[in-house]
Amino acid sequence: MGAKNVCLMTDKNLSKLPPVQVAMDSLVKNGIPFTVYDNVRVEPTDSSFMEAIEFAQKGAFDAYVAVGGGSTMDTCKAANLYASSPHSDFLDYVSAPIGKGKPVSVPLKPLIAVPTTSGTGSETTGVAIFDYEHLKVKIGITSRAIKPTLGLIDPLHTLHMPARVVANSGFDVLCHALESYTTLPYHLRSPCPSNPITRPAYQGSNPISDIWAIHALRIVAKYLKRAVRNPDDLEARSHMHLASAFAGIGFGNAGVHLCHGMSYPISGLVKMYKAKDYNVDHPLVPHGLSVVLTSPAVFTFTAQMFPERYLEMAEILGADTRTARIQDAGLVLADTLRKFLFDLDVDDGLAAVGYSKADIPALVKGTLPQERVTKLAPRPQSEEDLAALFEASMKLY
Amino acid sequence: MGAKNVCLMTDKNLSKLPPVQVAMDSLVKNGIPFTVYDNVRVEPTDSSFMEAIEFAQKGAFDAYVAVGGGSTMDTCKAANLYASSPHSDFLDYVSAPIGKGKPVSVPLKPLIAVPTTSGTGSETTGVAIFDYEHLKVKIGITSRAIKPTLGLIDPLHTLHMPARVVANSGFDVLCHALESYTTLPYHLRSPCPSNPITRPAYQGSNPISDIWAIHALRIVAKYLKRAVRNPDDLEARSHMHLASAFAGIGFGNAGVHLCHGMSYPISGLVKMYKAKDYNVDHPLVPHGLSVVLTSPAVFTFTAQMFPERYLEMAEILGADTRTARIQDAGLVLADTLRKFLFDLDVDDGLAAVGYSKADIPALVKGTLPQERVTKLAPRPQSEEDLAALFEASMKLY
Repeated sequence: MGAKNVCLMTDKNLSKLPPVQVAMDSLVKNGIPFTVYDNVRVEPTDSSFMEAIEFAQKGAFDAYVAVGGGSTMDTCKAANLYASSPHSDFLDYVSAPIGKGKPVSVPLKPLIAVPTTSGTGSETTGVAIFDYEHLKVKIGITSRAIKPTLGLIDPLHTLHMPARVVANSGFDVLCHALESYTTLPYHLRSPCPSNPITRPAYQGSNPISDIWAIHALRIVAKYLKRAVRNPDDLEARSHMHLASAFAGIGFGNAGVHLCHGMSYPISGLVKMYKAKDYNVDHPLVPHGLSVVLTSPAVFTFTAQMFPERYLEMAEILGADTRTARIQDAGLVLADTLRKFLFDLDVDDGLAAVGYSKADIPALVKGTLPQERVTKLAPRPQSEEDLAALFEASMKLY
Repeated sequence: MGAKNVCLMTDKNLSKLPPVQVAMDSLVKNGIPFTVYDNVRVEPTDSSFMEAIEFAQKGAFDAYVAVGGGSTMDTCKAANLYASSPHSDFLDYVSAPIGKGKPVSVPLKPLIAVPTTSGTGSETTGVAIFDYEHLKVKIGITSRAIKPTLGLIDPLHTLHMPARVVANSGFDVLCHALESYTTLPYHLRSPCPSNPITRPAYQGSNPISDIWAIHALRIVAKYLKRAVRNPDDLEARSHMHLASAFAGIGFGNAGVHLCHGMSYPISGLVKMYKAKDYNVDHPLVPHGLSVVLTSPAVFTFTAQMFPERYLEMAEILGADTRTARIQDAGLVLADTLRKFLFDLDVDDGLAAVGYSKADIPALVKGTLPQERVTKLAPRPQSEEDLAALFEASMKLY
C-alpha cells in the first residue's frame, strides 16, 4: 500500500495487550511510521467519533490500522471517511432519516481491520454504528466505501477475551446469522432501484448471503459454548472468530432486521446496568446482549414468511424438528433460542438489564428511526407491534 | 463504467441465440456503441486467442462483454489482457513452466462476463485456459488481474443448453468442488511466499474456499440430474448456474488438482472423438468430460490425506456412510462417483473417448507441465503414479 504515515486506532484497554503490540511490532519491523490513537470509546458516540475524526484530519494519514472490536473498527471507518471528505457535515453520511444518507464519492485511504472480538464482523462490512447522544439513539453510517480494505482474522487475538465478552459478541454473530437469513428476500424489497448503483448496502437475503448465514450459524451452534467456557480452547475461539467474519459477509450484504433495530434503543437508553467483564467507566448494555434479548419474541413474530427457514435454524441450534408443525416454526425457534441463551447464562430479559414496562414508549420511539434495518423485516411492524415485542422480551424464561 | 466503445465477444453458435440478443438489446437501449466478435473457438487455442487479441488491439475498446461458456470468457480475458499490455510477448503471462508466468501490473479494462453454460465458473476466476498447439497441451494464464469485473448469472441463459452440454459442464462443477475441497491446505503449501503479494492465485484449500466447495457439491447432488433430464426445469438449471459460480469462487481461490491436471492432455490429444450435442467442426472431448473421467481413480489415490472429507463428499453425493471404514474413504467416494456418472450416461472411461494403453506415455507427458495444479494435489505423484491413474481410468464401470 506504500503507506508512510499510518494511524493505528485502538482503545485504552487493548493498547497494552498483545494484539496492539503485534501490529506495532510489524509496523516497526517494516519501517513504517505510525501514530497511535487509543482513545476509542467502547460503544462510541458522535462526540467520540468527532474526536477521532479531528485526530485523523490533523494527522493527514495515508493508511489506517484498526485493532479492536466493533467500536474501534467503526470509529476508524468514520475517521477515515470524514478525514477524506473534510468539507462534509457529520450528518451528511449518516443514514436517513436522522442523517442525510448521502452517497460517498470521495476516495478513502486503505484501512486494515484487525478484530479482537468475535462478534461484530465489522472488518467485513461498510457500516459504522454510534450513539447519537442528542437523540439518545444508536444510528449508523452505511456505505460500501467505508468497508475495510483488508481484514486480518487472527484467532490468537481472541485469547484475551473474558467469558462474557465472548458470550455477548457471540450473540451478535448468532443474530447476524438468524436475521440475515430471514430478512426480506432481495427480490421482494421495494422500491426496486432504477439503477443498481443506488442499491442499498443491505439488499435483503439472497442466495449468496444465505450461504454465509447458515454456515456461521452452524459454527455458533457447535463452538460458542466451548469458546465461552474455556479461554484456552483455541479451536473453538478460532472457529468463532471466523464465524464472526462469515456472518459479517452475510449480513453486510443482506442486512439485519428487528433484533438489531430494537437493540439500538436498548443500548442507547441504558440506565445503570453495568455488564460483567467490561472494563468501562459508564453504564453499558453490550451490543450483542441488547440484540439477543429480543430474539425469541422477534422470531416468533416474523416466522410467518418462510417458516421452513425457522425450523432449519432451530434444527441447526439443536432442536429435534422431525415432528414439528410448520405453523409452529417461530415458536420452535424461540424455544430453542431460550434454551441456548439459558445455557449461556444470559440475563433474564430486558427487566434484568434495567427496563420496565414504563420504558416501552421510549424504546419504541428509539426503534422508529432504525428504518435502515427494520424495513428489512419480513413482516411490517406497527408501533403497537414493537411495543408488544419489547413487552414480550421483558422476561425470557 | 462510462464505456463508449464496447467489445462483445461470443461464438458463432451463440451469436444468434437469446443470451447475445439480450446483451445487444441492452447496449443499444443504453446508447453504448459496440462491436461484436463472434469468432471465439470452443476449446480455444493460442492461435484463436491471438486472433481475438489482434481484434481487441485494433478496436481500442474501453470495456468488454463476454457472452458464452468458459471458452468465450477465457478468450475475452486474454484479449483484454494483451490489448492492455501491447508490448508483451504472448508467453509472458502464460503460467510456468511453459510460459514465463510474469505478474500482471498493467491496468485492464472492465470485463462483464455472462456465462451461458453452468460449469466453468470462469466468470469468477482469474484463469484463462487454452490449447497450446505446438506442444498439444492445455495450459493457462492465471492472474487475479484478469478476473472479470462483474459476472451476470442469469438462469434464463441456460435454457438453450442441450442435455450433454448440461451434463459435461455439470461435471466440471462437480470436480471443481471435489478437487478444491481436497487440495493441499493453504498452510501446508510450500514454499511459503515471503510477501503475500507473491501468493499464487491457487493457494490451497482454506476455510473460505471450503464453504463454496461444499455448498456447490450439495447443489450438484440435488440438481444436476434434473437439469440434464429436463431443459425446462428452470429451478434445477438456475441452481446449477449458481453452483457453477459458487464452485468457481471456491476453486478460483483454493485451486484444483489431478482431475484437472490430467484432463488437459485428455482434451489436448483428442483424436477422432466427437462429443454429442456439441456443434463444432473439430474432434472434441468436452472439458467437463475430460475432467470427470479420471475422478474415481484420482480420489482413490489421494484419499489418504483427510479421508473424513472423502466420506463427507460421498455422503453428500448420496452414499450411506454410516458403517464405512475411514481407510476405505477413497474407495467409497470412487464407487459413489461411478454410480453418479453411470446414471448420467457418462462414456465408459478413456477408452470410450478414443484412448488406449499405448497413449498413456503421451498423456503422462502432457500432465507434467500442469504443475500449476498438480502440485496442489494432497499426495505427490511420480510419472508411474500418473500412468497408473490413466490406466485405471481406461474403463469406469
